[in-house]
Amino acid sequence: MAHLEYPVLDRGFVRLIDHMGSDLSVVNAARVSFGKRKEVFDDADAKLISYLAEHDHTSPFRHTALTFHVKAPIFVFREWHRHRTQSYNELSARYTPLPDLNYLPELDRLMINAGGSNRQAGTIEASDALTHANALEWLEQTQVIYAMLEQHYQWGLKIGIPKEVARITIPVGRYSRMRASANLRNWLAFLTLRMDPKAQWEIRQFANVLGTFIKQTFPHTWGLFVGDAS
Amino acid sequence: MAHLEYPVLDRGFVRLIDHMGSDLSVVNAARVSFGKRKEVFDDADAKLISYLAEHDHTSPFRHTALTFHVKAPIFVFREWHRHRTQSYNELSARYTPLPDLNYLPELDRLMINAGGSNRQAGTIEASDALTHANALEWLEQTQVIYAMLEQHYQWGLKIGIPKEVARITIPVGRYSRMRASANLRNWLAFLTLRMDPKAQWEIRQFANVLGTFIKQTFPHTWGLFVGDAS
Amino acid sequence: MAHLEYPVLDRGFVRLIDHMGSDLSVVNAARVSFGKRKEVFDDADAKLISYLAEHDHTSPFRHTALTFHVKAPIFVFREWHRHRTQSYNELSARYTPLPDLNYLPELDRLMINAGGSNRQAGTIEASDALTHANALEWLEQTQVIYAMLEQHYQWGLKIGIPKEVARITIPVGRYSRMRASANLRNWLAFLTLRMDPKAQWEIRQFANVLGTFIKQTFPHTWGLFVGDAS
Amino acid sequence: MAHLEYPVLDRGFVRLIDHMGSDLSVVNAARVSFGKRKEVFDDADAKLISYLAEHDHTSPFRHTALTFHVKAPIFVFREWHRHRTQSYNELSARYTPLPDLNYLPELDRLMINAGGSNRQAGTIEASDALTHANALEWLEQTQVIYAMLEQHYQWGLKIGIPKEVARITIPVGRYSRMRASANLRNWLAFLTLRMDPKAQWEIRQFANVLGTFIKQTFPHTWGLFVGDAS
Repeated sequence: MAHLEYPVLDRGFVRLIDHMGSDLSVVNAARVSFGKRKEVFDDADAKLISYLAEHDHTSPFRHTALTFHVKAPIFVFREWHRHRTQSYNELSARYTPLPDLNYLPELDRLMINAGGSNRQAGTIEASDALTHANALEWLEQTQVIYAMLEQHYQWGLKIGIPKEVARITIPVGRYSRMRASANLRNWLAFLTLRMDPKAQWEIRQFANVLGTFIKQTFPHTWGLFVGDAS
Repeated sequence: MAHLEYPVLDRGFVRLIDHMGSDLSVVNAARVSFGKRKEVFDDADAKLISYLAEHDHTSPFRHTALTFHVKAPIFVFREWHRHRTQSYNELSARYTPLPDLNYLPELDRLMINAGGSNRQAGTIEASDALTHANALEWLEQTQVIYAMLEQHYQWGLKIGIPKEVARITIPVGRYSRMRASANLRNWLAFLTLRMDPKAQWEIRQFANVLGTFIKQTFPHTWGLFVGDAS
Repeated sequence: MAHLEYPVLDRGFVRLIDHMGSDLSVVNAARVSFGKRKEVFDDADAKLISYLAEHDHTSPFRHTALTFHVKAPIFVFREWHRHRTQSYNELSARYTPLPDLNYLPELDRLMINAGGSNRQAGTIEASDALTHANALEWLEQTQVIYAMLEQHYQWGLKIGIPKEVARITIPVGRYSRMRASANLRNWLAFLTLRMDPKAQWEIRQFANVLGTFIKQTFPHTWGLFVGDAS
Repeated sequence: MAHLEYPVLDRGFVRLIDHMGSDLSVVNAARVSFGKRKEVFDDADAKLISYLAEHDHTSPFRHTALTFHVKAPIFVFREWHRHRTQSYNELSARYTPLPDLNYLPELDRLMINAGGSNRQAGTIEASDALTHANALEWLEQTQVIYAMLEQHYQWGLKIGIPKEVARITIPVGRYSRMRASANLRNWLAFLTLRMDPKAQWEIRQFANVLGTFIKQTFPHTWGLFVGDAS
């Protein structure tokens, strides 16, 4: 069974593993209140689903589910796991040595600050005067650091340091993997916060790809979510 | 799309609307910890899933979902809705008059007390000395009461009492309908409490039928749940 | 220990049992992100808490708790219990006969329709042409119905119908009691929906009183919630 | 306001910030089912609370709350945050440089493997033949690595790498801080998993200290939890 997958960042990805429901199941759940059910999504459904979204009637969007497989750096998962309505299973460095894959940003990304303000835009604090030369050198040094950390990690494992302890020098830029499941409503709540320009650029890349998958499986709901339900 | 449906009590039912996942998705979620994934459920999976269940590793059972449509008396829903991990959409008497369908127990059921102790078993309190004649008379009178309540309800609606107020005399034995969704782990937690002999007999009938559906969709997990994983 | 209590409807009430936290604990939780903590709520805190509320940063509002004891009609609890972030313990008619207390609306309330539209305002459907004479008669008949239901209930209990079955004719207008706990953030989410003019008038009366208690315990947060943080 | 605080590991701690409720509030919540409330915890309460615990009636334990402030290494928080019933606010490396505090295990701890099996106990895999000399060298090298990582981090911040990116080489052994809140029932569910010998030794040290605080605030419930309710 081949799953659709999109690459994210330099070595990550998002893969849709499974899903349940459609735009039609949303409206049918809502129609339980009125005692009706339909087989085909029509204009009246489009109107109903808009009403539900506008009035924050979230329950009909919950009789659905999407499971994703995600490969992302640990610092991205650290932000991700604050969303407590998703179910997670992640690769555990207690039992399995984490592969030597680490996030290295592209040069351009270093020019974007927290909250998305781009330095070129004139909102630079004095301390943000990052030069291209410095940025390049930092990227190079970061690679050296990553290599050294991997060497230390492997050496620890080799001499018999328990895996769960040997990992303490693993950097938060290292890639891990997880499966994450939630219903449509909770995925949209996640995207509201993580597609926002105030979210860190890296997690936004993952959020955007999740959005692409949701658009494919729940096109009408997605249109309402991004404000383009025409 | 025809959904499988089983009758419950005198006028209720449980219908499986949709589901996501299988026994295989449970073990594949668990294997994320070790970085592996498989296509077919085999003996090693059977062993793994037993381990997960025994050691209360619940997260792998959460990348799944089942949506049911349920018709049950209000007093059953009152107990059901204490389970806060399910998502619900129920027929609303604020907007739609509730159909005139009320639960009338069978004679035998009246002989079973709270907590499942059968009166014949000798655990009768003095006050429980229910005679067949009294039981029959009570059933008859209850039908009269139901008819009277329906008449009062219809009259209220007819003279213009707002639906949301006219409903105040609706008895908790009246049937309502809902859609309920949860992941496998949370359905099993529900069944642990509601298939228990201490649960009220009526909700146990619904729980048993839910179990039948779960057995069909997650046979191996079900075997472990009921302690028959041979 | 005497708890503060406000009456609601004809026989209900809301009583504050216990609470944890203050406006200061909200900002101190937020300040963990920056590594600071303070002893007294000042102007900078007022600014911070406004920022948190505006940008939907809900987590700092969650290190708090309020427990209420509530007496309300069953149909009110039916709506209330859809809020799955509260913890509940309710009087159980399986074990304890429900006291003979039933909700009887005042005459004026019958003139308000679902969604809060007042009939006088000209939004009357034909079927809503409720006359004062009919309303009065309906109230009188409802009282007769209530009395009859209580008689049937008591008779069932007396002849030995199990409590859990004898209750099936109890009307949803009967009063029950519960203890409900949630953190500040989740109480506010409840009030957003239940103080809304679209909520049923009865539950709005309870929501308003809950708001009064929250105003006393978290005055600054409350000011922001109702849009009056001046 | 001074909060009680216990040190954990080489540089961490757990501090009780606030709490709501007592053993008495647990039984009073349970007694709502029967319509009673008491002022003093007595023998009947002891019996009732045992019954609740034995029969897994969790709701009465939820009308309570405890908020802790915790300083722990990131890898401990990574495990901690899988518990989705707690509310968290953590120091953010997006906004505040993380102080240069890193976890360095003691020599003895290196001799304990995942799952708690001690190497001396004879359950050593070949690869686990850690010698004291190697262990000491690893500890020394780990300190060197930590120093180098801090240097790289500070240099990145200095040349203007955005804080949220400069952090990518921070090791998961670095200390962070958070505030965590949950009700008693959910704290006990956390401790069931994290005081277990199969849990990683480091998080167990935090769990044990949390237990000490719970014992002080809910002594009777704690006695039942650890199986010593005499």
